[in-house]
Amino acid sequence: MAIEVFKSVAQSKKGTQVECDSRGHKFIIDEPKKLGGTDTGANPVEALLAALGACKCIVIKSFARKHGIDIKDLKVEVEGDLDTDGFLGKNKAAKMGFTNIKTKIYIESDTPREQLEEFIGFVNRTCPVSDTLENSPNLESELIIK
Amino acid sequence: MAIEVFKSVAQSKKGTQVECDSRGHKFIIDEPKKLGGTDTGANPVEALLAALGACKCIVIKSFARKHGIDIKDLKVEVEGDLDTDGFLGKNKAAKMGFTNIKTKIYIESDTPREQLEEFIGFVNRTCPVSDTLENSPNLESELIIK
Repeated sequence: MAIEVFKSVAQSKKGTQVECDSRGHKFIIDEPKKLGGTDTGANPVEALLAALGACKCIVIKSFARKHGIDIKDLKVEVEGDLDTDGFLGKNKAAKMGFTNIKTKIYIESDTPREQLEEFIGFVNRTCPVSDTLENSPNLESELIIK
Repeated sequence: MAIEVFKSVAQSKKGTQVECDSRGHKFIIDEPKKLGGTDTGANPVEALLAALGACKCIVIKSFARKHGIDIKDLKVEVEGDLDTDGFLGKNKAAKMGFTNIKTKIYIESDTPREQLEEFIGFVNRTCPVSDTLENSPNLESELIIK
């Protein structure tokens, strides 16, 4: 067991703007105007999809050589379906979060398709963000009033 | 039903560096040096935690007025436990992703604690990223070879 604790801090700014900080690496999350924000960054569900796409990229790059896989170029597109009627309170039966997430992995490679398909199967099983989405972690919440 | 499709594109750069793009909003994801990267951004699992923290911030800010909640300042810290032995191939039994995610919500407010606690319960049920982590979406993967 080598349990490591990862951490991010989200500081709320004006309106829906949020500054996220992980070990000094900062980026802005906001909502687009049609969802009530000022559109100064990706929104939280887009950031979640970005995390998944980036995680698959990194697993692919980290394990390609060991698996004898050639990667000349790599891009991962991630699309998620979400019924915004849930969040907007228009439909109490709607699921609040994503119902479906589809990942398209674009690889430029000389490696045969069959070997690439097998490798991507390994990647999908190994990707930490993918696993977190597929096998729910325990979630805790604490309120601290200042 | 108002199914909306959200999208992010992750373009792999040198090594573990990835440029994420959501509707033109870009940020870099990378790994720290001890996990084989060049540390030019948060890593994917940190970005996932940031997405969760930011989502809770935005739900709180979006619904506070309607629920009669006073918010003077708001910060959300998110910590996740992950056994890196899984990803590093040292332990085949280890879960690849987070086993536990803890959110600490810091609110500066004049609203009584009981009312705030009730409101945070609503926020945790309403947050789309939280729901996606708690109630797994269907996950699809497609490989496109160029």
